[in-house]
Amino acid sequence: MNYSIILYIVGKVMMLEATCFLIPAVTSIVYGEHEGFAYLTVGVVAAIIGFLISGKKKFENVFFAREGFVMVALSWIVLSVVGAIPFVITGEIPNMIDALFETVSGFTTTGASILEDVESLSHTSLIWRSFTHWVGGMGVIVLLLAILPMAGGYNMHLMKAESPGPVVGKLVPRLRDTAKILYSIYLVMTVIEFVILVIIRMPIFDALCITFGTAGTGGFGVKGDSIGSYSYAIQVVVTIFMILFGVNFNAYFVLLGKHKKDAFKIEEVRWYFGIIFAAIVVITVNIRGYFDNIFIALNHAAFQVGSIITTTGYSTTDFDRWPQLSRNIIIFLMMCGACAGSTGGGIKVSRIVVMVKSVFQEIGYYIHPRGVKTIKMDGKVLEKPVLNSIRVFILTYIMIYVISMFLLSLNNFDFETNFTAIAATFNNIGPGLAKVGPMANFNIYSYFSKLVLTFDMLAGRLELYPMLLLFCPNIWKIGKGK
Amino acid sequence: MNYSIILYIVGKVMMLEATCFLIPAVTSIVYGEHEGFAYLTVGVVAAIIGFLISGKKKFENVFFAREGFVMVALSWIVLSVVGAIPFVITGEIPNMIDALFETVSGFTTTGASILEDVESLSHTSLIWRSFTHWVGGMGVIVLLLAILPMAGGYNMHLMKAESPGPVVGKLVPRLRDTAKILYSIYLVMTVIEFVILVIIRMPIFDALCITFGTAGTGGFGVKGDSIGSYSYAIQVVVTIFMILFGVNFNAYFVLLGKHKKDAFKIEEVRWYFGIIFAAIVVITVNIRGYFDNIFIALNHAAFQVGSIITTTGYSTTDFDRWPQLSRNIIIFLMMCGACAGSTGGGIKVSRIVVMVKSVFQEIGYYIHPRGVKTIKMDGKVLEKPVLNSIRVFILTYIMIYVISMFLLSLNNFDFETNFTAIAATFNNIGPGLAKVGPMANFNIYSYFSKLVLTFDMLAGRLELYPMLLLFCPNIWKIGKGK
Repeated sequence: MNYSIILYIVGKVMMLEATCFLIPAVTSIVYGEHEGFAYLTVGVVAAIIGFLISGKKKFENVFFAREGFVMVALSWIVLSVVGAIPFVITGEIPNMIDALFETVSGFTTTGASILEDVESLSHTSLIWRSFTHWVGGMGVIVLLLAILPMAGGYNMHLMKAESPGPVVGKLVPRLRDTAKILYSIYLVMTVIEFVILVIIRMPIFDALCITFGTAGTGGFGVKGDSIGSYSYAIQVVVTIFMILFGVNFNAYFVLLGKHKKDAFKIEEVRWYFGIIFAAIVVITVNIRGYFDNIFIALNHAAFQVGSIITTTGYSTTDFDRWPQLSRNIIIFLMMCGACAGSTGGGIKVSRIVVMVKSVFQEIGYYIHPRGVKTIKMDGKVLEKPVLNSIRVFILTYIMIYVISMFLLSLNNFDFETNFTAIAATFNNIGPGLAKVGPMANFNIYSYFSKLVLTFDMLAGRLELYPMLLLFCPNIWKIGKGK
Repeated sequence: MNYSIILYIVGKVMMLEATCFLIPAVTSIVYGEHEGFAYLTVGVVAAIIGFLISGKKKFENVFFAREGFVMVALSWIVLSVVGAIPFVITGEIPNMIDALFETVSGFTTTGASILEDVESLSHTSLIWRSFTHWVGGMGVIVLLLAILPMAGGYNMHLMKAESPGPVVGKLVPRLRDTAKILYSIYLVMTVIEFVILVIIRMPIFDALCITFGTAGTGGFGVKGDSIGSYSYAIQVVVTIFMILFGVNFNAYFVLLGKHKKDAFKIEEVRWYFGIIFAAIVVITVNIRGYFDNIFIALNHAAFQVGSIITTTGYSTTDFDRWPQLSRNIIIFLMMCGACAGSTGGGIKVSRIVVMVKSVFQEIGYYIHPRGVKTIKMDGKVLEKPVLNSIRVFILTYIMIYVISMFLLSLNNFDFETNFTAIAATFNNIGPGLAKVGPMANFNIYSYFSKLVLTFDMLAGRLELYPMLLLFCPNIWKIGKGK
């Protein structure tokens, strides 16, 4: 295990986070709030510690997938712990486990909250909560890769560990350029959404927070009823941008290139829009009786489908009260998640597609034992190791789910509450159903359960294995560089 | 598609079932009930039709996996439809869909019932219900193979399609002998249980029905409270036999041979007992406050764990009222199921073990990318096609589960009811939780839902693919013998 480079990366992450604290600090000045001091203080301390552990040491820039995974997992944990401290210092979330839950929920773009009354938070802390979504959406390590001059081809292991999806491709030969392009697209789309929201008369502060939450597919809002009290125009814009941020960013890169039409041929993206369309139609029909007219039903259906499949988690209405068919579709969309290579969570559309294709292939095998046995995506044959990894990913997902169910059931809440609480955190959505529905919060759980759900959020965001590796005792004993 | 042999097998199955009708007919005479006429009449008609479609034709005894699957699926459907008719004629279950649900539930050894009051049934129909468990447990096709002189090595395709588990091995070189040995072990164990139950003063009729239900891991009883009102001694004996019938029958065959110790080394069997032990301990601790003393709690815990993991479905208490941890363990055991090669249903312990090993292998791969990448069971390396089939089996299982959830949610029952209704039928258990708990029944569902659950029972019993193949339009177009 190459410890020197792990410390280097973790140190840099702390310094980066210290810089991010400038945003709440400035907000604090604008609104004349005193909470900014907490953020500044923690930022200065984090910067010093980060500098000390990363600055002076020589290190070998040779590492493997396991170091990449450990680095990323530790980076996210440090990021969350440091990011939680100001909540405790300001007294807005006095308990450290609660604050950690909230911060992990932020960085992992989950948006599940333990706050009973979000509107009582200071602007300083509100913007920090929302900004963690933005950083976590595209990834702090990807951001680091974009700004950090690191030589060698090993950084790919870092990128792989943080980026969502079964296959992580470089857009351009140099990884640093790939990271820069991703963040540029991300930034531009974020700015566009913000400007549009301001134009259609959303208050600037709200527009900023909601934009961060939409871009990162997070879901933290600034009001108790999420997006419910904003105008229909705002709801429609947010719907559209949620769905856009759930698209595989490769598609946008292709759109910027010469063969623009190819962007619309990406199989995962077509499935993604197909699922969204089908879900909206079925839910609209299913809930039409609950609203004054079908257009209002359509608006709510579209918003919730976009919000859940992209794992954002905003809501315009209490979908926990919808009929069972719609609620089941919501739960399915939670698991399904957005496209690989987007800012969304969940299993990812491409994995679901491969899963379905695997099933049909197996059936086909029984019909024609000597038939062709390949599975294609975008016209290319998926190689067996990739197929295997996808299938085992889903098995691992189920295993973590089952264990979480056992641990959570110590609370003795009903099955649906526990089942959807895990669905909502593990897939980085935010709200679940029943006792953790869109109008409720996660404060009902014990501290132990909150830690379990915190683990699930991190495991979900980092696609399971980085977090699982931390629990393997022998990983810490491996010789340097081996 | 080799239609001639499909007709031959289906015809023989009808004739076999006609013979089975003698059991309710004799019971009818013993108890002086008139319901026996219905069984006799249907039996005679079934025998004639069976003779006509199977008797005279010449056929090619060459067929492949797909014909085997289709034959088995059709046989089970015909078996169930014919077996349901007497219920309708006697008026005890006047509706055909209800009667079909009940009969499929019997043959698939599910034990889920739509009857509000089982005690009002005639002895004739009670024994038929229970006897369907016994036939379905080891399999009607296996029974046919044991008694039918069929040449050629193709019968293996039939055996594979009906026998539960990822790998079906012959115990001895000739398949017919394998089938005979399996049924002999089955019969002897059945007789032993029956004798013991009678000795400890269970009424003979009850003992016969409960023995059929235990042996086939079915779960139909003769009383409204299942096994709850029998003595503790009877409950303990039933517990032990349920668990014994959930063991891979290969183990018993090994026990009869020279190397008896090897039976205790079979990995799946060890896991099976390990899971049972762990589940009993945790549940006993979890529910101890619900009963007068810990021994009563232990008795209930052991009974329910044995009943659910073997997918029998008997109950001694309303476990739906247990705390959430115990209820979650019950749900897990429902999915897990018994050993491959037993009379139990579910995913099967061996598949779960392979699934867990796959996950650890994947984690190991990230730690040591160049490490060994094989998965072993009983010391033997599992080959990749087998591994793949097991993984895809679980994916197929999930897909059917999700689709069933959507179809069932049209009823607008709560999530837990629908979720466990599918778990209880798809895994061939019987009772679920909430509205379909051990003290309730499945009559709450619409006819459409009952058909969905009927499909799930058959799909679960025949391990998914035979039933799925029936829905592939192109399977019916394939040229003969190709």
